[in-house]
Amino acid sequence: MRIGVLGAGQLGRMLALAGYPLAKEFVFYDLSGSPSVGLGEVIVDRDGSYLEDFLSRVDRVTYEFEHLPVEVAEKLAQHKPVHPCPRALQVCQNREAEKTLFGQLGIPTAEWRIADSAKSLKAAAEELGCPVVAKSNTEGYDGKGQAVLKDPAEAEQAWASIGHPRLIVEKFVNFKREVSIIAVRGEDGHVAFYPMAENTHHEGILRYSIAPAPGLAPDVQKEAETHIKALLNELNYVGVLTLELFETEGSLVANEMAPRVHNSGHWSIEGAMTSQFENHIRAVSGHALGSTEARGVSCMINIIGEHGDIERILELPYAHVHLYNKGERRGRKLGHINILADSYEELVWRVRNCVQFLPGSPEFTSSLTTRG
Amino acid sequence: MRIGVLGAGQLGRMLALAGYPLAKEFVFYDLSGSPSVGLGEVIVDRDGSYLEDFLSRVDRVTYEFEHLPVEVAEKLAQHKPVHPCPRALQVCQNREAEKTLFGQLGIPTAEWRIADSAKSLKAAAEELGCPVVAKSNTEGYDGKGQAVLKDPAEAEQAWASIGHPRLIVEKFVNFKREVSIIAVRGEDGHVAFYPMAENTHHEGILRYSIAPAPGLAPDVQKEAETHIKALLNELNYVGVLTLELFETEGSLVANEMAPRVHNSGHWSIEGAMTSQFENHIRAVSGHALGSTEARGVSCMINIIGEHGDIERILELPYAHVHLYNKGERRGRKLGHINILADSYEELVWRVRNCVQFLPGSPEFTSSLTTRG
Repeated sequence: MRIGVLGAGQLGRMLALAGYPLAKEFVFYDLSGSPSVGLGEVIVDRDGSYLEDFLSRVDRVTYEFEHLPVEVAEKLAQHKPVHPCPRALQVCQNREAEKTLFGQLGIPTAEWRIADSAKSLKAAAEELGCPVVAKSNTEGYDGKGQAVLKDPAEAEQAWASIGHPRLIVEKFVNFKREVSIIAVRGEDGHVAFYPMAENTHHEGILRYSIAPAPGLAPDVQKEAETHIKALLNELNYVGVLTLELFETEGSLVANEMAPRVHNSGHWSIEGAMTSQFENHIRAVSGHALGSTEARGVSCMINIIGEHGDIERILELPYAHVHLYNKGERRGRKLGHINILADSYEELVWRVRNCVQFLPGSPEFTSSLTTRG
Repeated sequence: MRIGVLGAGQLGRMLALAGYPLAKEFVFYDLSGSPSVGLGEVIVDRDGSYLEDFLSRVDRVTYEFEHLPVEVAEKLAQHKPVHPCPRALQVCQNREAEKTLFGQLGIPTAEWRIADSAKSLKAAAEELGCPVVAKSNTEGYDGKGQAVLKDPAEAEQAWASIGHPRLIVEKFVNFKREVSIIAVRGEDGHVAFYPMAENTHHEGILRYSIAPAPGLAPDVQKEAETHIKALLNELNYVGVLTLELFETEGSLVANEMAPRVHNSGHWSIEGAMTSQFENHIRAVSGHALGSTEARGVSCMINIIGEHGDIERILELPYAHVHLYNKGERRGRKLGHINILADSYEELVWRVRNCVQFLPGSPEFTSSLTTRG
């Protein structure tokens, strides 16, 4: 079976690495003109003229990023199975649609309003009570196109800085930590859940994911599973879906979802019985899903901007290095390291030991470390 | 770094899958005209006319099979680092040279003689005492070119059936089981050892490998490590080396070595902290070696000849499927399945459960099962 992947970055690369052992072949369709997948055939197509060619050569289509035109996915779906479905894309590209769907399915979110002017932004901030977070309704990712308002008076400036005609304004959530749940749904409707991860961001970019999330109450995992299962079934979704959440005192608040394998699931390559990448390929291909059970405890460390001393990291017996073969650039995801351990105590020690060889990395903070 | 691989079969494929996450790129040089690697660039070259082209595009050279002409490896070594060294190839292609080296290094073997005629084969069988195993001195693998003599009188017939001008004749070893040790040596001379595997053959083809070998005395592992380390250092070897041995009452007897990643080490993909494939790439590239520690207990089951019911096997939560994307053919290695468990008892149950979906497989026998 040949799988067509829309996008040709590191996620596509890791999907292929997981798919080859299942006898899959891959064709990547790149719209950006800068593929980094580094293996398999890549069709670079800036104007859509090779779309038919791409289609004729694949049995199934999937994607590795959600910022591709929904029309493209819909057009493809008329000819070949596209997983996840174009509707999932559509929802994820529009925060208002996403939050509305969450609400319909009983998934708690921060209270929110829509603003289409500086004036209505100010009004929303007043209604919700500051601090609020204003985000462009479409096209935002990795913390871009966002502003925090500590006072309604900052509305004019925030509106100008975001520069988008339609914003979603959310009441600030007083959270204990950021978490995510990754689940996979097969063609037959069967669903499997990964243990939740605890995520640490820095400058809007994910830096550390610990899985299973330390000290997580079983009912919180169950709650997240209920939420993501509702989404999967509502969308008749096939493949891996990620739901990012805030854990507050006693509850979960949904932030956003991503219709794909996710950075906070990279730990699963060595840290789970079946990686998120293999499970996505299994689902998209119509196979049974693999076990999502964790193997010990893991921490994924992103390599951002510069590689650091990879040679020293390769010497660490508990570190698994995953490089994307990309050039260094500020803020760019160049790879990640999965640290494995049998206990969280051991994990903290190992992560700290590894991070010393990544000069660009922020200090390792998590619920396992003492802050400040 | 771009690594050139001589050969383009499943071992090359798995080397590449392990090497991409370390930012390696691959070019395969295929002499057989039937590459099955399925990813990366393949140069098919039956007459050596593209050898220079291949050389110009790679930084290091390695190989996935030992039946390539030593002259080719030597020629390449004049221009680019070739790991393992051509001398290792030379030794492995000649059973007499191999056994002689074993003897020089104090590695026990079965008693052996050389025969270059039916008459000298008969004499050897009489001297050693039957049963003896006669093997073509060069070019044999997977049980081909071999004959067992139960009586010296069978010499004429055995000589004719093997049809080779020079044979090695070995006294039959009364072994408890077949085992192997895989080790890797870095460019800096550092050596790491995998836990030994117990191997079960059927019709001359490996069927099952269990690792760590059940019930193995620690001093037997140490003994094997001493032997393989002697070989690695003598050959100034860089990369993965495999030594196949017989375990007898109280000791080890070396059978043969393979200068490459080995079928009896495929369990290491999920069953060890670092797979044999990744460690070979690390060694060949000049990196530090990764941990060879086992993760639980594993059994590798080869898929031979026909695929069986892969869909059902994908449903087993403890099975990891590795397909080579090859067509079915009697006796052909099409893939393997790694079964993981926390105990040997659990492992036996799981392997038996899996094997029912592989109709071509012989019954699972090992030191863990009751025979006959």
